[in-house]
Amino acid sequence: MAPARIPVAVLGATGLVGQRLVSLLADHPWFELAAVTGSPRSQGRRYGDVVRWRLPGDPPRAAAALVVQPSEPGLPGRLAFSALPSEIAGEIELSFAGAGYAVSSNARNHRMDEDVPLILAETNAEHLALIETQRRNRGWDRGLIVTNSNCTSMPLAMALKPLDDAFGVEKVFVVSLQALSGAGYPGVASLDALDNVVPYIGGEEPKLEIEPRKMLGRLDERANTTRLAPFTISAQTNRVAIRDGHLLCVSVELQEKATPAQAAKVMRAFRGRPQELELPTAPPQPLIVRDESDRPQPYRDRDAGNGMSITVGRVRECPLFTLRFVALGHNTLRGAAGAALLNGELLKAEGYL
Amino acid sequence: MAPARIPVAVLGATGLVGQRLVSLLADHPWFELAAVTGSPRSQGRRYGDVVRWRLPGDPPRAAAALVVQPSEPGLPGRLAFSALPSEIAGEIELSFAGAGYAVSSNARNHRMDEDVPLILAETNAEHLALIETQRRNRGWDRGLIVTNSNCTSMPLAMALKPLDDAFGVEKVFVVSLQALSGAGYPGVASLDALDNVVPYIGGEEPKLEIEPRKMLGRLDERANTTRLAPFTISAQTNRVAIRDGHLLCVSVELQEKATPAQAAKVMRAFRGRPQELELPTAPPQPLIVRDESDRPQPYRDRDAGNGMSITVGRVRECPLFTLRFVALGHNTLRGAAGAALLNGELLKAEGYL
Amino acid sequence: MAPARIPVAVLGATGLVGQRLVSLLADHPWFELAAVTGSPRSQGRRYGDVVRWRLPGDPPRAAAALVVQPSEPGLPGRLAFSALPSEIAGEIELSFAGAGYAVSSNARNHRMDEDVPLILAETNAEHLALIETQRRNRGWDRGLIVTNSNCTSMPLAMALKPLDDAFGVEKVFVVSLQALSGAGYPGVASLDALDNVVPYIGGEEPKLEIEPRKMLGRLDERANTTRLAPFTISAQTNRVAIRDGHLLCVSVELQEKATPAQAAKVMRAFRGRPQELELPTAPPQPLIVRDESDRPQPYRDRDAGNGMSITVGRVRECPLFTLRFVALGHNTLRGAAGAALLNGELLKAEGYL
Amino acid sequence: MAPARIPVAVLGATGLVGQRLVSLLADHPWFELAAVTGSPRSQGRRYGDVVRWRLPGDPPRAAAALVVQPSEPGLPGRLAFSALPSEIAGEIELSFAGAGYAVSSNARNHRMDEDVPLILAETNAEHLALIETQRRNRGWDRGLIVTNSNCTSMPLAMALKPLDDAFGVEKVFVVSLQALSGAGYPGVASLDALDNVVPYIGGEEPKLEIEPRKMLGRLDERANTTRLAPFTISAQTNRVAIRDGHLLCVSVELQEKATPAQAAKVMRAFRGRPQELELPTAPPQPLIVRDESDRPQPYRDRDAGNGMSITVGRVRECPLFTLRFVALGHNTLRGAAGAALLNGELLKAEGYL
Repeated sequence: MAPARIPVAVLGATGLVGQRLVSLLADHPWFELAAVTGSPRSQGRRYGDVVRWRLPGDPPRAAAALVVQPSEPGLPGRLAFSALPSEIAGEIELSFAGAGYAVSSNARNHRMDEDVPLILAETNAEHLALIETQRRNRGWDRGLIVTNSNCTSMPLAMALKPLDDAFGVEKVFVVSLQALSGAGYPGVASLDALDNVVPYIGGEEPKLEIEPRKMLGRLDERANTTRLAPFTISAQTNRVAIRDGHLLCVSVELQEKATPAQAAKVMRAFRGRPQELELPTAPPQPLIVRDESDRPQPYRDRDAGNGMSITVGRVRECPLFTLRFVALGHNTLRGAAGAALLNGELLKAEGYL
Repeated sequence: MAPARIPVAVLGATGLVGQRLVSLLADHPWFELAAVTGSPRSQGRRYGDVVRWRLPGDPPRAAAALVVQPSEPGLPGRLAFSALPSEIAGEIELSFAGAGYAVSSNARNHRMDEDVPLILAETNAEHLALIETQRRNRGWDRGLIVTNSNCTSMPLAMALKPLDDAFGVEKVFVVSLQALSGAGYPGVASLDALDNVVPYIGGEEPKLEIEPRKMLGRLDERANTTRLAPFTISAQTNRVAIRDGHLLCVSVELQEKATPAQAAKVMRAFRGRPQELELPTAPPQPLIVRDESDRPQPYRDRDAGNGMSITVGRVRECPLFTLRFVALGHNTLRGAAGAALLNGELLKAEGYL
Repeated sequence: MAPARIPVAVLGATGLVGQRLVSLLADHPWFELAAVTGSPRSQGRRYGDVVRWRLPGDPPRAAAALVVQPSEPGLPGRLAFSALPSEIAGEIELSFAGAGYAVSSNARNHRMDEDVPLILAETNAEHLALIETQRRNRGWDRGLIVTNSNCTSMPLAMALKPLDDAFGVEKVFVVSLQALSGAGYPGVASLDALDNVVPYIGGEEPKLEIEPRKMLGRLDERANTTRLAPFTISAQTNRVAIRDGHLLCVSVELQEKATPAQAAKVMRAFRGRPQELELPTAPPQPLIVRDESDRPQPYRDRDAGNGMSITVGRVRECPLFTLRFVALGHNTLRGAAGAALLNGELLKAEGYL
Repeated sequence: MAPARIPVAVLGATGLVGQRLVSLLADHPWFELAAVTGSPRSQGRRYGDVVRWRLPGDPPRAAAALVVQPSEPGLPGRLAFSALPSEIAGEIELSFAGAGYAVSSNARNHRMDEDVPLILAETNAEHLALIETQRRNRGWDRGLIVTNSNCTSMPLAMALKPLDDAFGVEKVFVVSLQALSGAGYPGVASLDALDNVVPYIGGEEPKLEIEPRKMLGRLDERANTTRLAPFTISAQTNRVAIRDGHLLCVSVELQEKATPAQAAKVMRAFRGRPQELELPTAPPQPLIVRDESDRPQPYRDRDAGNGMSITVGRVRECPLFTLRFVALGHNTLRGAAGAALLNGELLKAEGYL
């Protein structure tokens, strides 16, 4: 007999990232979707009736039958995934953690808090050690908050991690070509997207210049906080007319010179804690390196590893820095809902629930 | 009474750049389209009957009535614009120059020849002095070849020129988001373009790393050749789903530190020889600098100055280099047909015809 | 010396149709844009500062300098173009007409009023005779309201008019493929537009089934109202990922059988009152018929006649009805702003101002 | 122990439909891909090395390892799926059938042959009885050819079938909005697809006006041929910028008047022979009817039933005919590769292998 699944809640379940979480939880081996929350307008009605489903097909049957609840503690279970908009996520997540919930959040509000782990499960699972400090600081007994990064920071951090471990990252130039789904729904107007590029995404560049440094940073000795990794990132971000998949053109200066072949080798060999623990949502290979001259491409590569693998290509020398390459990640899966879910699985496997 | 217009030919008039040239010449004050050439399949037939017109509407009436000729000397006039494909442009252009024609070429074949000027009229009109060497080297009496750059090199060279003059350019990172029309017709398959980005354009990055350095280089003392400008460019190029307009994200290291305001000021003030000479196709302002956070955008800005101005935006500090900015140019106008035409006008105004 | 231009106002000038009107009025030979109105949020500020300009480039300089006013009588001049949203257009237009303004409206509110002419200038300029009844009914001395049709009704009415005159229209099937700009800004979300079709446009099909019948209807004897043309239309409408240009696939049953060649002939020969009066915005040829098998196409044909001509193609036999064909019109020019402007010109030329 | 799988071949495996077949066969419970064929350029090389894979990710591992063979009898197994281009399919399929193979073809060449069944498995499985005649006519012992329809004919035939059975179809107007993948690769040029519609697809309308009538026709008494169903179709076809999914706007005149609710009921209840036989590729419900006003949509509905269900929506009254509705099918799955595969399964289940 299969063991009982753990009841979980999705906060902010009607948005685009919430919908992805609801989808991913439909047949999850460990977790059972027991509650969804939404805005006052939706509360008290069936999820299937109020959600404007933006993914192919229909909401999963079981989820569709749930009644939308307010985003307040009192929901079944002890694990809540937060896909709340940042306008309200900060306070609500605190109230859930204060009430004893483990909160795995995709919102940006607490990402840079000193005692909140910003976790990309493959790169810095050990940052979960901050939770002890966090609980002490905030007087929480069982509650906790972990966050995952911005959807664009994630593929960059994943691609840089094995390079940083092996060769030391010093400087990074990155230009992104980001998908429309990153702006949510309705998000970008079609008249701005069609036959156009918008070379600006509000608030995105500062996140992309700091979050990867926290994820690749080190716990300080007493696990009171994390130290930002000591490299500098210069980021330019663009919105292009693709549905899903953020593509990054990266140039990186390394402390120890590495050839493209050496870089590709460490990226291919890279595995993290989720692979070790065989977490259900972990891709077998977090970094796929392709040899074709014209890959990765969003349409062809965003779904690699069920949307949880990052695909890297065009690893080659750079006339100014050591190396350059292209990296691609699925922004609403690996870069948002999938990352939050994987963090939830990590919390469970590491005994934090 | 208006003076008689100078008869000119367009070589390779049925391709996408050829069509743009034919359009631009329809009401030209100095030049009159007197001949069009094309492949054997088209020769002897009316241009209007054989061209697969890819621009809005129809070919200009006068052009449509011309009979397509072989790409061989013997055409009316002495000025030929070459929109030939690079597979055949090299030899044919030599034969025209040898026969006494002034050839203004958009093809890449002779761009990097030591005695061939690679002209962006605003940045290096003085390189026309190479023509004397060219004629001597090749034994040409009246013939000559001038070239314009690759469509992506052009906006970069234009944007860098005033910065280089004022502050000295040392290093350049550039990532391009390039339009579909840059690949000609049929060019990119729609299944590769829709909901996708292709992070590779064959042969484009080497051009983008060298051509701007020739255009911003100096004539040597004896005007025997040009010296490449002594800065380094690292380029990554991408094909995105826009019709026209190449957008560049640029970071630049300057010898003399400049603020964004200082950089914007010299770019706005920049004028070149075409403005001085008031050439018919010259835009009043070659570099437009916009203050909005989300411009330039291909749809909104590619037609600035009738497609002959470069629009720059987001001029700001860079954490790694001195400055960064976004630049946009219309690739088949300013970056191809318009550039070739402007070079023809420059040749005329400077007495080379 | 040029005669003084007539001052005009654009009501609702910040929306997409309002922006088109402002553009078209920039260099108008008869009219001078003297006032723009907008929502309370915009009032009292410079138009150039509040408008989110969705067209290429920038707002015309003179318009940009105007201060946005409330949509209330008291504006300079006596002619007002209404691009107001239908939520508020009804009352405001009445108040302007009541205050003595001639209102040329693009809004749907009064289109089907019995005493309001629904004018497509080429097809039913004689319906202006209703204005006398309208003034009598409503107690207006000098004021009046004329309307133009929905953007999809327009190309259908234009294409049917010469067929109806020559052969008698009995039944019409029409399926539309409509541009994104028809939904205004922000309008259609890019996630709904990319790689997708939405086979539904709210309220559109009923308009498309009735408005052409009013435009092609007859004034009753006493010019008290118009009689709907006695044919039936079945319409299905779709939103597709094009910026501008509504394309219609039409099958038509005629009373008197006509061959495709006969139909093409009467369409090509068709001219209306605007051509007779040589109105400034009238296209020389309202209906262009193309012979290629794959035209009209939105990208290539929407700008024909400066966006004021309708392009028809593929005129051929239908296995069920007499004929079928494809028609295309620019929805925000001929189908909205251009139509309203042309109606304003018609009012002036016919002595209604 | 699982029974041994039947070895099958895919003829023309490198094209877009061939790739879909190779994908679908990767984990097929009955069939094992034993051979792939391709053009001389590909022969003798690994499929994985020569195919330009246009679907997400990579070719299935086992298929990638196959060596591409000439399209000639002598391949392992007795069942061949033909995704050959029509330029060569006719002769090659005959040679395979003559050599004893059962050929399930997606090519158009033999579709309208009197003794070749044109099978949409849910609508006319009984037409397989023609095979006996076919073998007799052509002197084949064990070989046979069955075909599936054009990708646009398929959703129309499927949607009409239950209506025809219940109420009798008399007349059909259909306008299609067809996906880019229907033109194969490279197919439609991106410059023709972006911000555009092409209202013409070569050869498509005649197929769409005849093939559904063969699929919905009856076997004559002696099973020597099929009689075309006695209704008339008028078709207009358009290419729009979507990747997969053909959408049809349909108006239908029925002999016996039916309400929208009655029509939706018989469509929802419709099941065919594949459902009865529980064929592996058969969708549980061949026709899904949605109640939302804005469905079906290609992005949201094309993958219904793993791309094998047709989705119908907007079933409503028509002012001219009895009813109208919108239908959508996945053109390269249900409309091509999936249909051919299902026909292969049907042949097996009905004892023709």
